[in-house]
Amino acid sequence: MIDRLIEKIKETENPTAVGLDTCAEYLPTEMRLKIKDFKDAARVIFEFNKNIMDAAEGLVPAVKLQIAYYEMYGFHGIEAYQKTLEYAKTKGYITIADAKRNDIASTAGAYSKAFLGVSDIGIAAFDADFLTVNPYLGSDGILPFVEDCKAHGKGIFVLVKTSNKSSDELQNRELKDGKKVYELMSDYVSEWGSGLVGKYGYSSVGAVVGATQSEEAREIRARHKDMFFLLPGYGAQGATAKDLKVSFDKNGSGAIVNNSRGIICAHKKAPDVPYYEAARMAIITMKKDLQEMES
Amino acid sequence: MIDRLIEKIKETENPTAVGLDTCAEYLPTEMRLKIKDFKDAARVIFEFNKNIMDAAEGLVPAVKLQIAYYEMYGFHGIEAYQKTLEYAKTKGYITIADAKRNDIASTAGAYSKAFLGVSDIGIAAFDADFLTVNPYLGSDGILPFVEDCKAHGKGIFVLVKTSNKSSDELQNRELKDGKKVYELMSDYVSEWGSGLVGKYGYSSVGAVVGATQSEEAREIRARHKDMFFLLPGYGAQGATAKDLKVSFDKNGSGAIVNNSRGIICAHKKAPDVPYYEAARMAIITMKKDLQEMES
Repeated sequence: MIDRLIEKIKETENPTAVGLDTCAEYLPTEMRLKIKDFKDAARVIFEFNKNIMDAAEGLVPAVKLQIAYYEMYGFHGIEAYQKTLEYAKTKGYITIADAKRNDIASTAGAYSKAFLGVSDIGIAAFDADFLTVNPYLGSDGILPFVEDCKAHGKGIFVLVKTSNKSSDELQNRELKDGKKVYELMSDYVSEWGSGLVGKYGYSSVGAVVGATQSEEAREIRARHKDMFFLLPGYGAQGATAKDLKVSFDKNGSGAIVNNSRGIICAHKKAPDVPYYEAARMAIITMKKDLQEMES
Repeated sequence: MIDRLIEKIKETENPTAVGLDTCAEYLPTEMRLKIKDFKDAARVIFEFNKNIMDAAEGLVPAVKLQIAYYEMYGFHGIEAYQKTLEYAKTKGYITIADAKRNDIASTAGAYSKAFLGVSDIGIAAFDADFLTVNPYLGSDGILPFVEDCKAHGKGIFVLVKTSNKSSDELQNRELKDGKKVYELMSDYVSEWGSGLVGKYGYSSVGAVVGATQSEEAREIRARHKDMFFLLPGYGAQGATAKDLKVSFDKNGSGAIVNNSRGIICAHKKAPDVPYYEAARMAIITMKKDLQEMES
């Protein structure tokens, strides 16, 4: 799966994922006012996502769907989530389900079946290309996902060093042996992904590394050349293109940068154009910004 | 919220949560054979849950719903999840949404709105009494949930030491200052819950501690007298009543024990009675087992 993502990034010349963190609050006013119940929310959110994906076609390789925003609207919201994933695939986007799932063995297996594999009645529910997962429970909470990556040609991004300020509280603690927690976790991620390295030298088991954390990103990159990074935190959270450079290899590969609010809320700063056009312009501006990083 | 749970445990004289990890695989054969698609799965699973809850009425204080099993069936599965929570409340059960959600600030807020609070259009989706959460991201990933606990009278259980074998990989690592990771996390949990201690001396911010981990449970109990434990791992995962004793206080309070497969799959060992009757008998057997622990 990582090979397909890398090829799609090359094709679009843009290592960006559009973060469809779509919720009522982020919609243009006239759309938000149409929402009276969860059913309306699901319909309007899918319409919004569809128009964004149409406008961004050919410009970005991937969309990342943060499921928390959809869960707010109960099962109707999850219907919009599922429909968005399906539509994304018809448009050729690589799909990243950002759900940070985690549990022990058989339950981790159920999550994996839901997002990457097929259920116990033989039908796939979300069928995303990638899923984000949380490693607090250790190997037996991660290996069921790795198995489905192998069986179904999928990938995962494991939380290693997150973009938020208080990620230091646990992730930057120094262990007795001198390693920091995020370094330990990156070593586990490398081990979990060792059987899934593709033709470009990267594994389908990648890491989530906050774009705001350039020091830690540099260290993880130095430790693990074969680890592909998903980088949240650009834009609204304050990371700039300069902060991202350490995460990429000398060919400009090795990572994908997510931007959610900077794209889907661009209409709030551009009220004279349709929201999807504002999103398209924000994507083009971001693409230029990332290209300057590479030069 | 923790006060209501403690009172309900006293009323039923049973510190047990029935784990409704309901999926096709765990259903009686004749029910499983009715399932051809996700819609069928949702209908049959809700019927199963309803009958279990009717049979267990008055015997247990709480039900715990592991959402992974429902997500396998896409939005139809989530509809069954939502309906089960609603029905549980009409029967007077305390509801624990076992979803181990985790993310950073605004996204953690969206998860919290979904499970404990109200969405940005003013309607509640799952409206559970308790939610399990994962602390890998630190305080700003947890405090949005704590805020909703205060605002809506809810509770959370934070993963501290999980029941699986490989939980040692991160959770039992020793830090430079001599603390183990799970001890550090228990100290954070205590801090997060300090403003939510109820009239029985326990906080609505509790901890998930594997029933299989009696050594660690003993240490966490010694560190934090005001921390209520959710104990998974009894039964199928191998923990016995003896292992649980360290988690309870001298009045027999301070923890609730989850049992999922031991109850909902009891019919597999008792083919001569209806599945809900098999579940009821398993609950009574477990109750006696836990009472012997106390004596």
